[in-house]
Amino acid sequence: MSRRLLLVGIGVGDPNHVTVQAVTALNAFDVLFVVEKGEQVDDLVAARREVLRRHRTPQAGPYRTVALPDPPRPWRTAPDYASAVRRWRAERRELWTRALGEHLAEGETGAFLVWGDPSLYESTLAVVQEVLADDAPDVSLDVLPGISSVHALTARHRIPLNRVGRTVQVTPARQLAEHGVPAGVDDVVVMLDAHATFASLPDPEAFDIYWGAYLGAPDELLVAGPLDAVADEIVRLRARVRQEKGWMFDTYLLRRR
Amino acid sequence: MSRRLLLVGIGVGDPNHVTVQAVTALNAFDVLFVVEKGEQVDDLVAARREVLRRHRTPQAGPYRTVALPDPPRPWRTAPDYASAVRRWRAERRELWTRALGEHLAEGETGAFLVWGDPSLYESTLAVVQEVLADDAPDVSLDVLPGISSVHALTARHRIPLNRVGRTVQVTPARQLAEHGVPAGVDDVVVMLDAHATFASLPDPEAFDIYWGAYLGAPDELLVAGPLDAVADEIVRLRARVRQEKGWMFDTYLLRRR
Repeated sequence: MSRRLLLVGIGVGDPNHVTVQAVTALNAFDVLFVVEKGEQVDDLVAARREVLRRHRTPQAGPYRTVALPDPPRPWRTAPDYASAVRRWRAERRELWTRALGEHLAEGETGAFLVWGDPSLYESTLAVVQEVLADDAPDVSLDVLPGISSVHALTARHRIPLNRVGRTVQVTPARQLAEHGVPAGVDDVVVMLDAHATFASLPDPEAFDIYWGAYLGAPDELLVAGPLDAVADEIVRLRARVRQEKGWMFDTYLLRRR
Repeated sequence: MSRRLLLVGIGVGDPNHVTVQAVTALNAFDVLFVVEKGEQVDDLVAARREVLRRHRTPQAGPYRTVALPDPPRPWRTAPDYASAVRRWRAERRELWTRALGEHLAEGETGAFLVWGDPSLYESTLAVVQEVLADDAPDVSLDVLPGISSVHALTARHRIPLNRVGRTVQVTPARQLAEHGVPAGVDDVVVMLDAHATFASLPDPEAFDIYWGAYLGAPDELLVAGPLDAVADEIVRLRARVRQEKGWMFDTYLLRRR
């Protein structure tokens, strides 16, 4: 008898982007661990519920849900930011350790449903690895890959991600803001952009943009074109829809012309 | 009535890595287009057949298969390489155009099953886009994302792909051989490496490697560790298994320590 954890990538909005392997996992867990961030978004809770409604059969039986409220992350402007982050990480880890100890029994399987793919700009895997290494070495872990926003974006735009023989970068918007698109790199996927960084590049005439939000969902938005021609349109669309819905997940590819 | 094409990502070796969306597509086509490269590998043909055997139900009915033999690609050392490549591309395009015209009837759906994800270091999508743009504008195209080798690799090693707030590169081995790992990049996934390029980096002590071959298949191989400690082991393993099986798909992540 032992305990088991599954990190299941569920894609970014189309409930049919889960893999057959993930469907099996969705029917195999006893305990669902749900990480609750401060700005809990009802639509995302509904999307996760829809994945389970569609793919977990009644034969799989009932399951328990354990909420893991994420401690509030320190502000970047906090005094002694580094040690504030250390304390925040320790607090989160202690919470998860306690939750595993109290709620996952011998012989049981727990699951985390992870947006997109569990390896890409997603902290769940790193925290779980820390907890298992030091506090729960008897728990086995399986990671099930998912369709990431990168692949959802290119599929919906029906474009290759890379050019033949060339490099692709995936980068958080903060890196793009600080360093621009590096020389020698022709294709960059930008993640986690809260500030429409694409609109302030110094050389917009050098790029095409392929932008998408709510990829694969019924309210999906797609815009593509020369960056200097469509950047303003995307900025306006983003602002309007973000205000209407209260949240936005978007991503984009910058492609050097 | 119109004609329809589906490019279906089927993952890289685990037949259960196909998505629920892909399973629907596998049950919806009338014609299967199969690109045949020169070095046709029996194991890959068998893998594709296994995906269909497992996920296409008898109710979907029979389908026709149309082979698209890839014209031999010119050698890099060919005289006037550039125009040889142009001729090669034109020949391929003409073949595909003819195949669509002759074998996909009004109201029918054709499918290409694409290894991994259709957007990542895969030429099928680019060729199809060319053909449709100029020669078959009445055919609609849908691209269905798949689990790429990048996500399969990180899932099987149970590691995040990126570090918090940092950039990731995906690059063909030729770029790595010519330029090394660029300054400021800490994580590089290397694709299409026929020559164990990782073993000739100038600074192996600066990296960990996470290597995998036949990811998700029963004969999967995984090696991870400090590059200077495990590079020789991977080189030997690669050479031995490649000779035994006659082919190898492998990929790896170089992670700066």
